[in-house]
Amino acid sequence: MTTFEIAKKYVELCKAHQNHVALETLFSKDVVSVEAAAMPGAPAELRGLSAVLEKGKQWMANHEVHSASVEGPWPHGNRFIVRFSYDVTNKPSGRRMQMDETALFTVEGGKIVREEFFYPTEG
Amino acid sequence: MTTFEIAKKYVELCKAHQNHVALETLFSKDVVSVEAAAMPGAPAELRGLSAVLEKGKQWMANHEVHSASVEGPWPHGNRFIVRFSYDVTNKPSGRRMQMDETALFTVEGGKIVREEFFYPTEG
Repeated sequence: MTTFEIAKKYVELCKAHQNHVALETLFSKDVVSVEAAAMPGAPAELRGLSAVLEKGKQWMANHEVHSASVEGPWPHGNRFIVRFSYDVTNKPSGRRMQMDETALFTVEGGKIVREEFFYPTEG
Repeated sequence: MTTFEIAKKYVELCKAHQNHVALETLFSKDVVSVEAAAMPGAPAELRGLSAVLEKGKQWMANHEVHSASVEGPWPHGNRFIVRFSYDVTNKPSGRRMQMDETALFTVEGGKIVREEFFYPTEG
């Protein structure tokens, strides 16, 4: 698959709430996942598909998703950008929040080898 | 200015249709600008602020802008992403088109040193 085909498949699976299928089929087992900032108890950078799958599982366990939208992909060479908008309630805190972020993906050898999440971390 | 401050200033100037002011004040004179694909008569990659200013001038001369929106910025370290949506008519062809693209900017030494535009170039 070309980068754009992988990108479109990724967005299609996310829209169908099959994010874990996207991870299992489109990502390299050596994928590196980088947040814009470290969170309490979670480093900014994770290495390896199992760590990334676990991060997704934890996030789903800790959030109630009221609505979600995925826009894109926008490709450029072996990279592509996707936008995510979520309306969620964080279960531990009970706090409802609107998340709006973009992610930059890098493809090598037909697999996503890097995902980087972009969002404000300061005022 | 931090990367996020530069990013917010960039978006603010674009929203005010002051793109040339953004270029002149926020960009390095050695900026590199990379399109997702080369266009007829225009290489994908341009180097230097004067070439980038000229590209913008040519684009404005060749397009009638009916509406434009700029969303973001979404920062991550020394980079940020912005989304552009345009409804324009290409003057030479008379063709009206909706453009929806994202751009990834890289900041070094307090100036934008690289801009990369993301959009589909294949079906």
